[in-house]
Amino acid sequence: MTELTATAHPNIAYIKYWGNRDQELRIPANGSISMNLAALFTRTQVIFDESFEADQLILNGEPVTGAGLQRVSDFLALVRQISGMGEFARVESENNFPMGTGIASSASAFAALSLAASAAAGITLDEKDLSRLARCGSGSASRSVPGGFVEWQAGDSDANSYAYSIAPPEHWELADCVAIVSQEHKATGSVEGHAIADTSPLQAMRIEQVPSHMKSCREAIIQRDFAAFAEITEHDCNMMHAVMMTSNPSLIYWQPPTLAIMQAVHSWRKNGIPVCYTIDAGPNVHVICENSHQEQVKALLKDIPGVLKVMLSGPGGPALLIE
Amino acid sequence: MTELTATAHPNIAYIKYWGNRDQELRIPANGSISMNLAALFTRTQVIFDESFEADQLILNGEPVTGAGLQRVSDFLALVRQISGMGEFARVESENNFPMGTGIASSASAFAALSLAASAAAGITLDEKDLSRLARCGSGSASRSVPGGFVEWQAGDSDANSYAYSIAPPEHWELADCVAIVSQEHKATGSVEGHAIADTSPLQAMRIEQVPSHMKSCREAIIQRDFAAFAEITEHDCNMMHAVMMTSNPSLIYWQPPTLAIMQAVHSWRKNGIPVCYTIDAGPNVHVICENSHQEQVKALLKDIPGVLKVMLSGPGGPALLIE
Repeated sequence: MTELTATAHPNIAYIKYWGNRDQELRIPANGSISMNLAALFTRTQVIFDESFEADQLILNGEPVTGAGLQRVSDFLALVRQISGMGEFARVESENNFPMGTGIASSASAFAALSLAASAAAGITLDEKDLSRLARCGSGSASRSVPGGFVEWQAGDSDANSYAYSIAPPEHWELADCVAIVSQEHKATGSVEGHAIADTSPLQAMRIEQVPSHMKSCREAIIQRDFAAFAEITEHDCNMMHAVMMTSNPSLIYWQPPTLAIMQAVHSWRKNGIPVCYTIDAGPNVHVICENSHQEQVKALLKDIPGVLKVMLSGPGGPALLIE
Repeated sequence: MTELTATAHPNIAYIKYWGNRDQELRIPANGSISMNLAALFTRTQVIFDESFEADQLILNGEPVTGAGLQRVSDFLALVRQISGMGEFARVESENNFPMGTGIASSASAFAALSLAASAAAGITLDEKDLSRLARCGSGSASRSVPGGFVEWQAGDSDANSYAYSIAPPEHWELADCVAIVSQEHKATGSVEGHAIADTSPLQAMRIEQVPSHMKSCREAIIQRDFAAFAEITEHDCNMMHAVMMTSNPSLIYWQPPTLAIMQAVHSWRKNGIPVCYTIDAGPNVHVICENSHQEQVKALLKDIPGVLKVMLSGPGGPALLIE
């Protein structure tokens, strides 16, 4: 019996991942850039034991069966294949944030699971190989393996599709003010969403544009140029949602308060507050600013009808094994 | 002194007009399809008189100066050029619906003005030439000249860019349930919006798709196939708004209740009510159904928070001279 525990942070993408070149291996249609969120984390313990007769999953204290268990078990099968170790595992995982609401719980979940499971299976993977492994569980999990500001190079095969850090967490004191407008599970999850990205007539054009988005965003982060960062982050977000709403079926993840926040952010920026928004495949809005403005932005967000709560987070570190 | 009065209806586009091939002549980037709205109208009286020293505009009882007058005066100059008549005009115009809120007041305004002014200037234009003339005042005005269900062929010059009827008003008893969520003047008018359509990386792709949208929509109207009509109408609307929100600057015309209505319409359709939405360059939502459902849809719309009022309209006739 080997038991290991790892933690990982979810991440917020500034250049978005939407659509796969290879659905099963999660080779993405385009590269992406993100920031880990220090205040949010998943903590996952993995025990392999020869006495287990099947994989088990306990999520936030509740046993999970069905599709949720199957996805984890498929992933554990991959770890067994890589490590050559044949035992079943018991996985216990906890998040300190709500799932299924546009906060990428699958990113931190599969990043933490990759690290805990590979270590418990007796193999030591470097950051690149850990990122590749995490990617097979959930695409955006590849970005929760390295720390700070992270770029996932799309690549075109399992070997070259992985993420690496472009700047450490302390490089830029950005704050993500996450405005929660719904804690309900979204109607169409990311996995199904990625699968229909190509049905939008606009997807090909977005993919063509992303390399220039990546360059602008990477440079803005390196130079800590908030104005440039805000422009490309919002534009790429709008491009992804344009693809979503024109796919078949049409995916509109926004809810009325989502739009109210987007418009408020524009008016705040017009009034001199350096702030921008980005939105994943869900209704919650990530309002980004430098951390000197975070309390002001949090207070402003709380005044918008429909905002249930606001979580603050700075840039987080990499996935880590803990005692 | 010659005095003539004309009326015209605004129209709602099912395949949208967004972007120009020629900004000044308003040769559109793509063709479009619309329905005139019988319940809404502009009524415009034009008097040419040799004693006038300048053009005058009275709109809903109020004298207009500045840019509003200039736009009408530029249009009257075109009428004077075509007719060879040199007098200035006094234009009195009234709408029975609010302006600047995504109900195309400029469409009915320039359609009525084209007819009244050309007739008052002593020239008789056929429907095609009247549509071409109206187009020079406001692109979508070309579609308010013919009656019923109307197609505006994009063309590539002043000579071949005009609208014609594809079915009379009585062909299909569609109802437009216009949900008004704001009566404020929009921040970015259509003229400026058309001018920046090309700054969206998605515009070229939409333009490429429109001919197939036109074909689907035309066939759905001819065959009175509501399901096919709903699908293409919403898709084309979403495509246009995708272009708008990814242009530079980003144009987001929706407001929180706009999104609430869009989502409600999807849930009603899922529950068996044949209904769809379309949205112009403004926050109001045109909810389309067959008129047997209009009272039910109106009642449902009124229950959505943020809906100020609901106007109902069936298909309207052409621009007409009145006594």
